[in-house]
Amino acid sequence: MADGFDYIRDGQAIYRRSFAIIREEADLSRFSAEEADVAVRMIHAAGLVEAARHFVFSPGFVAAARGALEAGAPILCDAEMVAHGVTRARLPAENAVICTLRDPAVPGLAASLGTTRSAAALELWREHIAGAVVAIGNAPTALFHLLERLDEGWPKPAAILGIPVGFVGAAESKAALAADSRGVPFLIVSGRLGGSAMTAAALNALARPGL
Amino acid sequence: MADGFDYIRDGQAIYRRSFAIIREEADLSRFSAEEADVAVRMIHAAGLVEAARHFVFSPGFVAAARGALEAGAPILCDAEMVAHGVTRARLPAENAVICTLRDPAVPGLAASLGTTRSAAALELWREHIAGAVVAIGNAPTALFHLLERLDEGWPKPAAILGIPVGFVGAAESKAALAADSRGVPFLIVSGRLGGSAMTAAALNALARPGL
Repeated sequence: MADGFDYIRDGQAIYRRSFAIIREEADLSRFSAEEADVAVRMIHAAGLVEAARHFVFSPGFVAAARGALEAGAPILCDAEMVAHGVTRARLPAENAVICTLRDPAVPGLAASLGTTRSAAALELWREHIAGAVVAIGNAPTALFHLLERLDEGWPKPAAILGIPVGFVGAAESKAALAADSRGVPFLIVSGRLGGSAMTAAALNALARPGL
Repeated sequence: MADGFDYIRDGQAIYRRSFAIIREEADLSRFSAEEADVAVRMIHAAGLVEAARHFVFSPGFVAAARGALEAGAPILCDAEMVAHGVTRARLPAENAVICTLRDPAVPGLAASLGTTRSAAALELWREHIAGAVVAIGNAPTALFHLLERLDEGWPKPAAILGIPVGFVGAAESKAALAADSRGVPFLIVSGRLGGSAMTAAALNALARPGL
């Protein structure tokens, strides 16, 4: 068989070399050792060391998210891509990974609430949200909607990953979370950057330390 | 119901405003009108107008990919996240979206071929690849493996999206595709940037023009 190209073919070796390059190039000095582990995976997913300057961890976020996952908390995702980016084998307690976006009730909820389907899908999180790990990696409207529901008395999740991406509402929704997270430990990527890949990478880092 | 925040809640309006901001800020002058439509969605997924400078469309790529999709070609994806980012309702011919990564044969193939599971999963594309749209949005090893198989005489796909992300092999594999695409029209994002979100966004733009 022709091996036309010279490249590393061992998946674990690729990860190790990638993470070493990231630690060499990225400025991780603002982060604790545990936060840096999460940051490295997020940078890896983005292909962009400069993304690190936009990462904001609230005090205790990593411990809160890890503790919840170890205790069996579900992960609530706003997008199918986030849910499908979570490596099931890394989860410490066979945690449920829930995305309600494709539930048949969602289009009707969106119409009656006058909001996006991504935001309306959160209505179906109500029974799961107490103590859950919330991962919003796509829709700013979902993050705004979550904050509104928390203000209306919904039970609190254990931790919030607020990492929606884009040009309309992304920066604003993440700033709103960071300004007042309603007492919930959080991680954001400030500004426009974010997205499902970075969010899933953060979840995978929180699920299990190391490679 | 309290509407605590002032933000756009109409999904289509959010898209329109986002795309307008991108066209205002991004330098799309290198692209044809059809290429620019694809570029705008890719920038939207990345949250980064600067990404545009890394987009390379080979001549005829958009027409080749669109023609194939309209004729019913399958989309072959290297990652579940890419496959789950494709908006099925946009596809012109209910095209199959195929990701073989989780096929039970893959771990054994990876071991016997001495490569990653992402690369080994391509072995199962053999019967689908003639005339297909190939979308590699995660693993550089998958893109290298594809080029090796084309050199060994595999039938040619209609178009290749070569958009793996990362720090080891991503830039090199995309440069290899751009240097010699084996006669297949291609789109790459040069360098480290890329990933499943940008790849799915490109597919969604190719599937149907407009919003």
